[in-house]
Amino acid sequence: MNPEEADSLMFRKIYDMSLLNGKSYDWLDYLSNNIGGRLSGSYQAQQAVEYTKAQLEELGLDKVWLQPVMVPKWTRGAKEFAYVETSPGLTKNVNITALGGSVPTPAGGTKARVIEVQGVEDLARYGKEQIQGKIVFFNRPMRPDLISTFESYGGCVDQRYSGAAEAGKYGAVGVIVRSMNLRMDDLPHTGSMSYGETPVSKRIPAAAISTNDAAYLSGLLTMNNELELYFKLNCEQHADVQSYNVIGEITGSEHPEEIMVVGGHLDSWDLGDGSHDDGAGVVQSMEVLRLFKELNYKPKRTLRVVLFMNEENGLRGGNKYAEVAKSKNENHIFALESDAGGFTPRGFSFDADKAQFSQIQSWKELFKPYLIHYFEMGGSGADVAPLKKGDVVLAGLRPDSQRYFDHHHAANDTFEHVNKRELELGAATMASLVYLIDKHGLKKIDTAKKEKL
Amino acid sequence: MNPEEADSLMFRKIYDMSLLNGKSYDWLDYLSNNIGGRLSGSYQAQQAVEYTKAQLEELGLDKVWLQPVMVPKWTRGAKEFAYVETSPGLTKNVNITALGGSVPTPAGGTKARVIEVQGVEDLARYGKEQIQGKIVFFNRPMRPDLISTFESYGGCVDQRYSGAAEAGKYGAVGVIVRSMNLRMDDLPHTGSMSYGETPVSKRIPAAAISTNDAAYLSGLLTMNNELELYFKLNCEQHADVQSYNVIGEITGSEHPEEIMVVGGHLDSWDLGDGSHDDGAGVVQSMEVLRLFKELNYKPKRTLRVVLFMNEENGLRGGNKYAEVAKSKNENHIFALESDAGGFTPRGFSFDADKAQFSQIQSWKELFKPYLIHYFEMGGSGADVAPLKKGDVVLAGLRPDSQRYFDHHHAANDTFEHVNKRELELGAATMASLVYLIDKHGLKKIDTAKKEKL
Repeated sequence: MNPEEADSLMFRKIYDMSLLNGKSYDWLDYLSNNIGGRLSGSYQAQQAVEYTKAQLEELGLDKVWLQPVMVPKWTRGAKEFAYVETSPGLTKNVNITALGGSVPTPAGGTKARVIEVQGVEDLARYGKEQIQGKIVFFNRPMRPDLISTFESYGGCVDQRYSGAAEAGKYGAVGVIVRSMNLRMDDLPHTGSMSYGETPVSKRIPAAAISTNDAAYLSGLLTMNNELELYFKLNCEQHADVQSYNVIGEITGSEHPEEIMVVGGHLDSWDLGDGSHDDGAGVVQSMEVLRLFKELNYKPKRTLRVVLFMNEENGLRGGNKYAEVAKSKNENHIFALESDAGGFTPRGFSFDADKAQFSQIQSWKELFKPYLIHYFEMGGSGADVAPLKKGDVVLAGLRPDSQRYFDHHHAANDTFEHVNKRELELGAATMASLVYLIDKHGLKKIDTAKKEKL
Repeated sequence: MNPEEADSLMFRKIYDMSLLNGKSYDWLDYLSNNIGGRLSGSYQAQQAVEYTKAQLEELGLDKVWLQPVMVPKWTRGAKEFAYVETSPGLTKNVNITALGGSVPTPAGGTKARVIEVQGVEDLARYGKEQIQGKIVFFNRPMRPDLISTFESYGGCVDQRYSGAAEAGKYGAVGVIVRSMNLRMDDLPHTGSMSYGETPVSKRIPAAAISTNDAAYLSGLLTMNNELELYFKLNCEQHADVQSYNVIGEITGSEHPEEIMVVGGHLDSWDLGDGSHDDGAGVVQSMEVLRLFKELNYKPKRTLRVVLFMNEENGLRGGNKYAEVAKSKNENHIFALESDAGGFTPRGFSFDADKAQFSQIQSWKELFKPYLIHYFEMGGSGADVAPLKKGDVVLAGLRPDSQRYFDHHHAANDTFEHVNKRELELGAATMASLVYLIDKHGLKKIDTAKKEKL
């Protein structure tokens, strides 16, 4: 058997095991339906730590441990409430949700006129004169013409992330952001935000509004720009609390000092159960190690699964893992994150040197029977990005992205929207790439000739 | 601008128009939610004929017409009912649905012991002795290890299609077939069946059972193979009725005699609303012509949309269209069917000569920005297959197949399971290929050198 045939056979074994005797879907069922949304610092997040640690221990890995990390704790409190008042007493409720990290409104809520803008850059144009005392409504939609929905997201999410910090500078009393969702529906999508350097006393509350209600509000404003919007948020920022990254390891048989990581993030937002974001990535990463164990494949290099805590609102877990790796002078050669949903896998994006990327591309044909075709330079994943250093190759699993933002950070990010086969194909695709890297190693960067792609 | 740049720009325009100002989703909304399931010969099928004809007429095509075709009419009647009786009076209901074309049970239903088999080929092994008087339960599942779910389907569907005809030969009194579904759930999936040469008096009733209940029944049988199953079907076969293919045409400006077809089938099963099978293909095909009209692209060759009637239980529309084309000596150079669901498009399969296939493959790079990567030899579509003759290239759109059989022929083949963007990407992908074929033409087969791929 030539080496390519051996690789091809191993691929088939990996996919068969994942599709015929996979465990990823059962694990996800538990995380989603028995634990649920896993916001950093919550009881559910701690349950997820304990559950995944116990499950990894059952796999017979060489080591399983918890890596302590302090995480922010933000709680939503009672469900948010909002209405539009077109004339005194004439109101209609709209669907909103507090952005993660927002301050609450005053106890009686915030009620003010609304100014609609298409982005942060519009604020200077309107100036304090028109913004002071109002609620700023950021309503730039995600672009439907882009094929990658992540690109559409990237073109809008600044409104959510820094809208409140920026609008606050012009005297706004609150911020409402159109949900990052390409579909028209009634579900508001939460997500992280930052007040930057804004002193606590100057912070204004911020919420997302559903796409249907964003369209409704925008339409109303064209008819009556004196209408008022009322909203009430009951969220609260607490002191940091103790939490953990969950780590399991198969120690390499020949090059234990060369470390490969597969991972996803254990925490999630609280509106749904976090099945796609990122329960899927968690169970797929666990499955990679389980597949190797089941197939009795003993990696030459050390393979770790890292279930990162607090990707959503702080990235403390990703930063902590990289910090500890650095302090121990560990040599990470590869880190792969799955954090783009449990949809049909299409391939990977890489953060790599040109020679490394060519090496990876030379493996494309092996993936073709599994309809894995996307091998491009680009981002990896938020949690593994802090590992960037020297020769390490970072990568992200790239599933089909069309439906991802229908569910992202919303109440419908739930188990029934994950297809078992799609999830299992993703796990097998990850394991297959890890197998090749373990077997063949990765080229070192020739720093003299280092070429930026 | 070089020719490739021109093609690339045209692609962008096509995708933009479909994603930003598409009409396919609205059309599908109407077909699914205002009309619903469109079984051949039903009132809904006739409504769909009238609706799509009217919509095509609004597009300002050169011609729109109905092509008469007689179709079979089979009706389900009152909902089916079935239970398993493990001991007298101790029963549990199971979810079944009559297969399309089945005879009804006697008015009082059919009740008998059950013999489980793994396929038609098992019947000879058990023989009349063990089968006579029993209900044959075909329980071979779809293979989960195959990447293409259509391949899994192909490996099982003989049980559904000819199970009753074959089991009848051994004296069975009825047939229960495991639903063609890779998921475990409670929904039975109907579909076509044939009694072959079986005389009417010897035909036995046949139904599909949900995958959960197939597993349940199989488990019970291992404990108690004397249990009885009762089922009652109320279906009826009527005389053929008049129906129509709906056809619209943009007549070619330079080569009107060279005809290109895009199509899907108007009829559907009756349990859901036929959104994926094949409402999606219908509206995507209509959209191809609309996109060209909106973009003011005047094809050099004649472009027809054909909405075929009766794909599901007779293929009368596909056969009629080919028959008329032959009688008129029409020259079809290309026919593309979309009948694999409205999911994210991945590419096409082709029935073509080697030289033609190479020509098409030379266009692959143009599709890459749209993540269209699958260009393979293979089937086309049931409705366009009868056009096979001479130089014609037949093709099928190939969307992601993982979720297709979760919905296929079941009550959950409904509008909310079609994603707007995925549907629109499919329409644009079809239009892009048609554009290239229109612009560049297709190679003729060198019959002297004809090579079978």
